[in-house]
Parts: sequence; C-alpha cells; structure tokens
Amino acid sequence: MADGSAVPDNGRMDPEEFRSAGHELVDWIADYRTKVGSLPVRSFVAPGDVLRALPATPPAAAEALSAVVADLDSVIVPAITHTQHPRNFAWFPSNASLSSVLGDLAAAGLGALGLSWQSAPALTELEQAVCSWMRQLAGLSDAWSGTILDGASTASLVALLVARERATGSSSRRGGLQQEASPLTVYCSREAHSSVSKAVLLAGYGVDNLCLVDAPAPGYEMSPAALAAAMAADVRQGRRPAAVVATAGTTGTTAFDPIGDIAEIAGRHGAYLHVDAAMGGAALLLEERRELFDGLEGADSLCWNPHKWMGTVLETSLYYVRDSAELVGVMATDPSYLRSSVDGAVVQYRDWGIPLGRRFRALKVWFQLRLDGPDALRARLRRDLANASRFASLVGAQPDWHVLAPVRLQTVCVRHEPDGLAGTALDDHTLAWCEAVNASGRAHLTPAKLEDRWMVRISVGAEATEWDDLEELWALMRDAATATD
Amino acid sequence: MADGSAVPDNGRMDPEEFRSAGHELVDWIADYRTKVGSLPVRSFVAPGDVLRALPATPPAAAEALSAVVADLDSVIVPAITHTQHPRNFAWFPSNASLSSVLGDLAAAGLGALGLSWQSAPALTELEQAVCSWMRQLAGLSDAWSGTILDGASTASLVALLVARERATGSSSRRGGLQQEASPLTVYCSREAHSSVSKAVLLAGYGVDNLCLVDAPAPGYEMSPAALAAAMAADVRQGRRPAAVVATAGTTGTTAFDPIGDIAEIAGRHGAYLHVDAAMGGAALLLEERRELFDGLEGADSLCWNPHKWMGTVLETSLYYVRDSAELVGVMATDPSYLRSSVDGAVVQYRDWGIPLGRRFRALKVWFQLRLDGPDALRARLRRDLANASRFASLVGAQPDWHVLAPVRLQTVCVRHEPDGLAGTALDDHTLAWCEAVNASGRAHLTPAKLEDRWMVRISVGAEATEWDDLEELWALMRDAATATD
Repeated sequence: MADGSAVPDNGRMDPEEFRSAGHELVDWIADYRTKVGSLPVRSFVAPGDVLRALPATPPAAAEALSAVVADLDSVIVPAITHTQHPRNFAWFPSNASLSSVLGDLAAAGLGALGLSWQSAPALTELEQAVCSWMRQLAGLSDAWSGTILDGASTASLVALLVARERATGSSSRRGGLQQEASPLTVYCSREAHSSVSKAVLLAGYGVDNLCLVDAPAPGYEMSPAALAAAMAADVRQGRRPAAVVATAGTTGTTAFDPIGDIAEIAGRHGAYLHVDAAMGGAALLLEERRELFDGLEGADSLCWNPHKWMGTVLETSLYYVRDSAELVGVMATDPSYLRSSVDGAVVQYRDWGIPLGRRFRALKVWFQLRLDGPDALRARLRRDLANASRFASLVGAQPDWHVLAPVRLQTVCVRHEPDGLAGTALDDHTLAWCEAVNASGRAHLTPAKLEDRWMVRISVGAEATEWDDLEELWALMRDAATATD
Repeated sequence: MADGSAVPDNGRMDPEEFRSAGHELVDWIADYRTKVGSLPVRSFVAPGDVLRALPATPPAAAEALSAVVADLDSVIVPAITHTQHPRNFAWFPSNASLSSVLGDLAAAGLGALGLSWQSAPALTELEQAVCSWMRQLAGLSDAWSGTILDGASTASLVALLVARERATGSSSRRGGLQQEASPLTVYCSREAHSSVSKAVLLAGYGVDNLCLVDAPAPGYEMSPAALAAAMAADVRQGRRPAAVVATAGTTGTTAFDPIGDIAEIAGRHGAYLHVDAAMGGAALLLEERRELFDGLEGADSLCWNPHKWMGTVLETSLYYVRDSAELVGVMATDPSYLRSSVDGAVVQYRDWGIPLGRRFRALKVWFQLRLDGPDALRARLRRDLANASRFASLVGAQPDWHVLAPVRLQTVCVRHEPDGLAGTALDDHTLAWCEAVNASGRAHLTPAKLEDRWMVRISVGAEATEWDDLEELWALMRDAATATD
C-alpha cells in the first residue's frame, strides 16, 4: 500500500493482512489508552451527530484500515464517555484491563464456537476452571459451581425463571404459568437494581407481585423485619413467595442487604434466594471485606460482574449456583445435532443460561488472572477503597457538604446543601453543580435519586484513578457548587 | 524481559506493555489462521483432559504473555474443533472474518460502556447505522428498525415475550401471566430450532401450549394448511394463538417455511409472527435468493446472525422489528441514574432486549463491512452456494448415496444406503461412517435426525473452504462408508 496502511486486496482479509492491520490497531489502542486522560471525559455530541457523520448507505467497496482508524479518531472517540479516563466517576468502574483485552482478542482470533462441550472442549473446561479459580479467590465454598453470563440483568432473569419453576413444580414443562391458581410473589429491596423488576416482568410474575421491601436510612439495607412481614402477609392472602433477591452493593449507595437474615426468612417459605452482587462482588476478593456478604452460603445463586470493578472486558458476569441440576432442569434442550457420545460426562453450558452458542468467554478472565495476577487485582481494589474513604472524609468535613450513606465500597454519595435550600430547589442545585462538573470535561459524575431526592454518586475506581484525580474532582465540585449558588 | 516476551512489571498491564504483548498475540493469531488447515479439524481430547492440564488453583503471581501463549498452543488449540478449518463442515459456518476480529478488538480496547445513549453516543448511533446498512444490504424496507443481540435464542425469547404481552394486553405490567384465564398458544415447524421451544418454556407459555406444525418431505417446510387447522382447532377449544415462529433456513436441512402464507394465517388470529433466519438470513444479501423469504415484510420481527455464515465475530445477532415502540414497551426500565436530558430524542438500546449494558457490538460489523466490502461478502456466499450445489449433484449421482432434502443454501443432507440397510441398522451405518470421517481429523461433519432417522449434514462455507476441500471430503466419505459396510 502506498500509505503503508493494511488493506485487503481481494475483499476478505487474509492472515498476513490481519497481521499488518492488527499491529496498526494495537498501536492505536495503546496510544488511545496513553492519552485518554487528556481527553474530555464525557462526550459533547448532540443526538444524531454521529449518525449524520456516517454515510446513510453501506460501503460500496473495501477500504484501508487507515480510513477506518481515521473515523475512529474523528467520529467515534469524540462521541463516547471515556470510561477509562482517570477522572471518570460515573456509573461504575468497567471493562478496563488491557490484559483481558488480549484474552478477548485471542477468543475472536481463534474463532471457536461454543455450542456444546464437543464443539470446543477447551472453551467449556477453561470456563469451568476460571469459574473455580474465581470462586476460590472469592472465598466461596466448593458447593458452588459457576458459568459466565453476559450480565447481571440476564442473571436476575435466569434466577427468577428457576425460582418460578421451583415454585410451580416445573410449570413450563406442562401448561405454563397461566395454569397456576395462586399468584407467585418476588421480593427485593426498594434500592435493588432496575433489572430485578425487569426480570420479574419478563419471567411473567407481573409487577403487582413484586414487593419492594423497605431499605431505610441510614444504611439503605433491606429491612429483614419488613421482608418477614411482607412475606407473612402475602401467605395469609393466599399468595406464594417464590423468590427473594438480595443486593450486595446497591447501585445507588453500595448498600449491602443482610444476606444471612434474608436467607433465614426466605428459607421459612421455601423461597429461592438470589444475590445480586454485580458491582459489589469484586469485594469478595478482599478477605477483610467478606463480612459484608455474611450468610452468602445460604443463597441459591449469586451473580457478580468481573467486567465492572475488576476490569475484565464486557460481557463477563459470573453466575454461581448451588444446585446446577436444578438450573439445567429449567434451561436444557437436547436437539439431535448437538448430541454426542460424551453427554453426561461433561458440562454443557448451553443448559446453564439462555443462549445456545457462546464465544470463548473464559479467555479474557484467564489472561487477566495470569498476566496481572491476583495480587495486582487486590491492590487496585484496596487503593480504590482507600481513596473513596479518604474522599468521603474530606468532603464530609466541609461545611454544607454531606456524605449521604455509609461508604461500604468505592462509591461516595454526596449532596451540597447550602443554607435554606431544600425540596426541589435543592434538587435543582444538585443537578446544576453536577452538570457543571460534567460540562467541564475534566471529570464525570452521575446523579441519582435517594429517597426521592437527587444526590450525586462519585464512583471511584476507574483503573487509572489515583488520589490526585480525586483532589482535582473535589476542586471542581467546590467551584461548581459555589458558582451555581 | 530476558525472553523478549511482554509481561506486566507491577501487575496491571499498562499501554506500553499492551503494545508489545498485543503485537505478539496478533502474530500468534495470524500464524494460527495460516496453519489451521494443517491441524486435525476436531479435537481428540477426552472429558476432563483440559481441566487436568490446568492448575486446580488460581495463579499466584503475574506471568509473561509467553507463558500464556505456550498454554494456548499446548492446552487450548488441541482442544477445540477448528471452526475456521477449510474442511470443517460441522454445525454452521461461524465467526471467521479477521476484519471483524479487528472491530471486536477496537471495542475491547476502547472499553466504552453501553448503558444508555449518554454513556457512549457513538456506541448507540453506530449500531443504528450498521443495522440500517445491513437492512439495506438485505433488501428490507425501511419499516424495520434493528439492534444487535447476542444470538438467535435470545431473539426468539424476546419475540415471544413481546407476543405474550401483546396477547395479554401487557399482563406483566399487572398481575402477570398467572392471571390469564385461557391458555396462549405458540406455533412453529417441527423442524424449528430447539431455541424456539426453550423460549416457549422460559416465557411461561408451557410446553403443552407449543404446537409443532407438520413440515413434510420432500421440502420440510411448515405446512400452511396444518398451521391453519391447528390454530382454528385451538381457537374452538378456547385457546388463544399468541405467536407463530417461521424458520427461514432450518438447522437440519435449511428448509424455508412459506412466510407469506404463514403471515396471512397468523394475521387472521392477530398472532405475532417472528421469523428465525439465524443461519439463512445471510442469503438476504443475495438478490437472487430473496424469493426464499417472500412475505417477510408481513412479519413482526426477524432475527439473523451475521456471526454465522457472514463470518462476523460472535455474538452478533441482528434483530429487526416493525414496531419498536411495542418492543420498548415490554423491555423498558427507567432508573434515575440512567436518566438524561436527551431521553426521548435518542434510541436507548437497553430497552430493546434483556441486558442493560452492552459492549460496542457495532464495531465488528462496521470493520467487516468497510475492510472487506459487501462485494467480497457476496462473492463468498455465492462460492459456497455453488460448491454445495455441485457437491449435492456429485453425491446424488452415486449409487447408494442420497441427498435427502433440497439444497436451498449451503447445507447438503446425505445418507449412504447400501442394499438392504434400513431402520436402526441404517442409523448405525450412518453414525459409523460419519464418525470415521471425523476420527480421521481431516474433515468434520455433524449427524442429525431427519424424520427420526440419522443423516449427515454437510454444512459448506467455512471462510477458507474451496471446492478442493469438498473433493477431499467426498473421498473421505466414500472410503468411510465402504470400510464400515
């Protein structure tokens, strides 16, 4: 090529073209990760800007990689929030680790197809191995067996489907949920993630049968007494408690529902217990934080997402169950073209979730654990915990600033409440200073509601975030909150 | 490093370490793709071999990439079926294209987070753009709008959830499916993919309410008359037809259900019509094959997987609907931490499927379309169609060999039926010669059942497969079938 950039000559890219283009793209990614801290954290594009920058019709002919990379630079990079920016404190830390990027690349390069154990034995057995390793690193007993799903929403749906089938004696294998006489009920904290209520709807329970249990200040954990009362009342009215979802690290404030108490109450009613630790689960890697999960061994299933705070590439959601036969009993299919002589001797992960085929998901965890090592993962989590705690102390000590919830992990929930501001005026002030910080491009925060009032979440723990970044954030926050007074 | 291999020095990999390791891995992938044709197509490992080759406990310390790559060579590569081998004729062609591997790498390297339009506008709008481009390339009208799901199983589930909500006036927003008095029914061909019955179970309809409609020889397409009769009978018995799933390219024989007739019948009952073209959809790219899909515009939703025959990296499943508001009405959630000022002006893909977060899926399609170009994709599909047709002619002309179904696309279904062999003896013979071919390591085929008898599917179209490979396969088949007589 005249411009030195790789381009397929006859259409489909061959291995030598891939070699050249791959080097070019790896360099581009390394450069992007090096400079990301100098970019505005958040995108300033307006709705439709990206669409308008792209052709309305498909490409007519093959192009060089350099043309695509030029568009990455001019169209794509300015139009994403840079999750990997050191001053990104929005949503949750996510999918950063370059070691896992390599594992994900290996998966795509191998192009293995996970339909059954037989189609790629290593794809299945490496997933078994890394699920076991992660279980050990998390201090879970060997009563759990795991798989990798795409995300916690899917995990909640799978759990509530299994719960539904347990409560109805496998109604799906007969006439379905519509033949059930008495309503099945599901319980979660009112601070639980929206995916729980979505799963309740999708699994057919109906939103009227979802009970959002009180989770009072100051800790915002689910109240066991309120749960027990709600379940007892439902039983008296002829309803059947089918499932409880406990959250270990809520999205809003990283509150931890008391799993042990909840397990005991759920057990009284034979209800299934799922623990959603999508974000918080990473803390299981730290022995000194495991008390937050007390009682976990009494749950039926557990989800936590290494693609969040642990930094594995999306979509990596660990789903552990104590009774894999029950899960398989709900999810199994057995078409003839997938049968093989080893059925029964192996794990068939297609029967552990919704999709049939899967990519080689375990590789990105395997690469990350081996190339970075567990100590580096733990050191990073401890750094973030310490930074969050220090930041909460700093902010909480200032006049008019309030830390609104216990800092259990790496999320600090704050509000600036100058004299006399309350109600919707306070909401307006909160949203205004948060937006001013975000509009600066120098940091990014997410507002959220707590007890129906807006607050601002500072989710510490992008892989690149150090204390200096929090100091810069604090200066931005003070300036913004004062300027909008 | 003494050995020249990249290793993280302090744990987490930094951009310069990634640059070096990335080059090393790209070279490894290019080498693997170059030599894949010289490897045994299928793995010969026994259950547990891979697990035993891996440590039982997690890594204790960080390792060099060279150690991981050595294990890729010694543990992983010998333990997968090489989907990209030119003589892999098993299951379906899948996730080969190196151009899309690069797009997938860009997604992981950027590490963007698809929670909402706001979290990464380009992630959403590029997905809109490539879904539009693929729609145009497929000759679909602009009444369709699309998204990228992980696979066709999920698409079938999403479609049947929407159908359930349509039939019950949004029962999930009230008391759920259990409050419905009369059973809802679903219809598909008895040749439909197992994911349809799985979706029926998971969506709560119950297997008793799934009608497997006759799909008779010689074409194995769903019989519209049988469908009409089944629906009418159900209505007379007080059941409510909620959905029909038509298959455009069945897994067994790539049969095409007559979509136009089916749409007309479904419409009479107000039933939702989903078209599962997971494998066959790639043929929409060829104008000369679109007649197979006649009537498609009368469906409510359509799924086809570019990660199959088109070669995009897993997990890339296009899901098109004609009424996106109806889909969003079933799937939407609106938690406060995801709200933004642009809601209403943008597409929020979290409300188009089950998961909340998504990776930057559109990049792998974008890279493939731009780097390879549509002409190369079409040329490859036409090559495979021609090879399959030529192979069917070759085999069908031989004594004792039978081609069992019309070759609509790239799958040839055959049986060797020497004099006197029938029933289970014929089954034994079929499975024996198929296994002999597979045991050679020189080609790989999948047996499947057709009308309760085993046959062998030759799924032509690994990206590297040329006519020479089919000639070699044919020699292997003849030898194997004769040797086992």
